[in-house]
Amino acid sequence: MQDFNFWAPTRYIFGHDAELKTGIMAAQSGWNNILLVYGGQSAVKSGLLDRVRKAINEAGVSVTLFGGIRPNPVDGPVREAIAICREKNIDGIIAVGGGSVIDTAKAIAAGALYFEGDFWDFFTGKRVVEAALPIGVVLTIPAAGSEGSGNAVITDSRNSQKISIRTEYQLRPKWALMNPALTLSLPWHQTVAGIADMMAHIMERYLTTTPDVEVTDRISEGLLMAIMKSALKLKENPDDYEARANIMWSGTLAHNGTCGCGRNEDWTSHALEHVLSAIYDVTHGAGLAVVFPAWIQFLADKAPEKPAMLGRRIFNIPEQTPDREAALLTADALRGFFSQLDLPVTFAGLGIENPDIPLYVEYFHRDKGTPYVGYYPLYPEETAQVYALMK
Amino acid sequence: MQDFNFWAPTRYIFGHDAELKTGIMAAQSGWNNILLVYGGQSAVKSGLLDRVRKAINEAGVSVTLFGGIRPNPVDGPVREAIAICREKNIDGIIAVGGGSVIDTAKAIAAGALYFEGDFWDFFTGKRVVEAALPIGVVLTIPAAGSEGSGNAVITDSRNSQKISIRTEYQLRPKWALMNPALTLSLPWHQTVAGIADMMAHIMERYLTTTPDVEVTDRISEGLLMAIMKSALKLKENPDDYEARANIMWSGTLAHNGTCGCGRNEDWTSHALEHVLSAIYDVTHGAGLAVVFPAWIQFLADKAPEKPAMLGRRIFNIPEQTPDREAALLTADALRGFFSQLDLPVTFAGLGIENPDIPLYVEYFHRDKGTPYVGYYPLYPEETAQVYALMK
Repeated sequence: MQDFNFWAPTRYIFGHDAELKTGIMAAQSGWNNILLVYGGQSAVKSGLLDRVRKAINEAGVSVTLFGGIRPNPVDGPVREAIAICREKNIDGIIAVGGGSVIDTAKAIAAGALYFEGDFWDFFTGKRVVEAALPIGVVLTIPAAGSEGSGNAVITDSRNSQKISIRTEYQLRPKWALMNPALTLSLPWHQTVAGIADMMAHIMERYLTTTPDVEVTDRISEGLLMAIMKSALKLKENPDDYEARANIMWSGTLAHNGTCGCGRNEDWTSHALEHVLSAIYDVTHGAGLAVVFPAWIQFLADKAPEKPAMLGRRIFNIPEQTPDREAALLTADALRGFFSQLDLPVTFAGLGIENPDIPLYVEYFHRDKGTPYVGYYPLYPEETAQVYALMK
Repeated sequence: MQDFNFWAPTRYIFGHDAELKTGIMAAQSGWNNILLVYGGQSAVKSGLLDRVRKAINEAGVSVTLFGGIRPNPVDGPVREAIAICREKNIDGIIAVGGGSVIDTAKAIAAGALYFEGDFWDFFTGKRVVEAALPIGVVLTIPAAGSEGSGNAVITDSRNSQKISIRTEYQLRPKWALMNPALTLSLPWHQTVAGIADMMAHIMERYLTTTPDVEVTDRISEGLLMAIMKSALKLKENPDDYEARANIMWSGTLAHNGTCGCGRNEDWTSHALEHVLSAIYDVTHGAGLAVVFPAWIQFLADKAPEKPAMLGRRIFNIPEQTPDREAALLTADALRGFFSQLDLPVTFAGLGIENPDIPLYVEYFHRDKGTPYVGYYPLYPEETAQVYALMK
C-alpha cells in the first residue's frame, strides 16, 4: 500500500426530496448571492429548477440563473459565468445537473477567484487551484461522480481536447443533495451510459501496479457487483427506486477517492475515450463501454494479473483459470454485461462506421504523451492495437 | 434504502512517518495551545510522544500533556482535563493513542465548551453536542475506529456502565495521522482484539432490517474479507507492514459511517459485550469475539436471512444451503476464524470461570431497556439464551 492522503469533506444528503434542502443548505453555508448553474431544458420542464429556485428564495438567498451547459462542456460558458460572478458578487455556486454542469461549476468557482489570468491556466497546468467559490450540488445524473470529487473535465473549444484537473479538496462540493427519484425520468441510454462511466471510474483505479491493496480492491469489487446487480434490476424495471438509489450512491463512491486509496491508478481507458468523444461528440459513458473491454482484452497478453483477479472475483471465473484466459473472459463478461444494458461495445455501435485509427492514435499521443504510462505503457503501435479491438 | 445524511470530513494522512505531521497540521488548523492526550507508558517508552511533542513545538505551538488514560476510559479524567482546557485556553486537542484516548479527547472537547453543566449531560441524553474543541489524532491502535467517527464511549465510574454518544459531525476529528508502522509493536492480543472490534463494527451495521442496501452490503463484505485475509497474513508474520496497513485503513472505514449508509443498524453485540467489560474489565474486542458468534448462532432460529447471506458471501457457504443452516455455519466460521487468531470464543476463554448469566441479563436490560430492539428484539429470556451460547 502506498502512502496516501484522503479528504472527502462533502456533506451528502441522500433520499426523498433532498433537492428541497437547497435553501437551507445555502443559508447555512452563509451564501447570499447564488449562481445557479444548470444544463438544458429537462431541469426546466420537469419543474426541478423552479422547486430549487423557490427553496433558495424562501431562504432569503438571491439567485442568478446560468443555464445551457451542454454535455462535454467547453470553456466559453465558463468565462462568461466568471464575469457574472464578479459583476454580481456571487458567493456560492449551486450546480443542478450531472457531471457536465458540476464540472463547469467547478471551473467557474476556481476562475472567479483567480484574478491574475484566465481560468484555463489551471487546465494547462500553469497554476494550481488554491481557492475557489464554494459549490453545492443537486445531482440529477449518476455517472461522473463529480458531486463528490475534486476533479473537473473541460473541453478546449479550439481543438476539442478534453482536459482534466484534479484537486485534493479545493474543488470538492461542500454538499450534495441526492434524490434518486430525480433519476427515474432519465432516458435509458443516459442511465446506462452513467453506469458504464461509474464502473470505469472504479476499474481505472482497480488496474493498479501497487501490490497489497486488498481493502481498496475489495471495496472496488463490491461496488462493481452492487452496480451490476442494480443495473440488471433497472433493466427489468426502470422505475425501481431502490435500484436507482444503489446506483446513485455507488456513482459517488466510485469517484470520491475511496477506490483509489493507497495505490496508483490507470486512467488509460478514459484517455482512449476522450479522443473519441472529442472527435465524434459521443456520450462519454457509451464510449467507455466500447473502450474498457478492448483495453482488458489487450491487457490479457501484456499484464493480465489484475484483470484476471477482477474477473474471478466479480464474474465468478473459476480460480484455476490461467491469468491470460481469465482476463479474456473478463473482457467478454464486461462486453456481455454492457450489451445486456443496450450499451454499444464496438465503433459501429457508437455510430462510427469508418473508424480512423491512425487519427485516434495521433490525437491520443498528442494529448497524452509517448508512451502513455498507465497500468501498462502504450506506444503508438500498441495504442493502435487497442483501438483495433473496438472494431 | 433509507434516506440518510453522510458527512465524514476527517482528513486522513496515511503512511510512513505520518505522526511527524502533527506540528504542521496543528499550525495549519490555527491552534496555539494544544492539550496532548495519551494513554499509558507505551507512547512514552517507544519515543512516540517525544517525536510528536517535538513536531508540535517546532511548529511554534504550545503543548500541555495529559496522560494516563486507561482502557474502558472513565469520566473522572475527562473532568480534570476540561478544567485544564479552560485554565490554559486550550484551542485544540491532539489524541495520541487508540479508541480510549480518542474517546476521552472527544468528551473533553465537548465538555470544554459546555459551560452550563457537566459534560456527562451529553452522555445521559440531557444535551446534544453542538460545539466542541477541534481534535486531531495520531492513531496507534486500529480497532475502535474513533479516529474517523463522531462517536465516543465513556464508562460511568459510579456503576461501570458504558455509555455511547453519537454525533453526525461535531465530534469527528479534523484530521487523523495514521502510520501503520506504529502498530507493528502492538502485542498480539491487542492486535487481534482490534480486529474483532472492527469486524464487529461492520457486522453490527450489516445486520439490518432495511432491504435493498446492496451497495452498503457489498462494501461491508469487502472490508470483512480484506480484514480476515490481512489478519491471517499477520498471524504468519506480525511484522508485515502491508497487512498492518490494510487492517488500519479497514478499521477506519468500518466505523466512519460508510457501512451504515442507507440502513438501520443492529448494535446488539456491542450492548451484550458492554455488560461483560463493565463487570470484568475484559478487553472490548476479545469480548466481542465471544459475543458475536453466539449472537449469530441465536439468530439462526429467529432471523437467519442476513447472517446466512453474510456467510455465503464471505465464507463461501454454498448458495443452496438453507438460511438456518447457513447462519449456523456462519457462526461456526466466525468462531473458527477468531480461534485461529487466538481470540477467546467462550466465557472461559475470557477468564470468566463461573458466568453469572442472570446478572448479565439484569445489567443488559437495566442499561438498554426491555425489549432491546436491534436486528431482532431481545426480552430477558432471550438475552439469557444468547449469553448461554457463550459457554
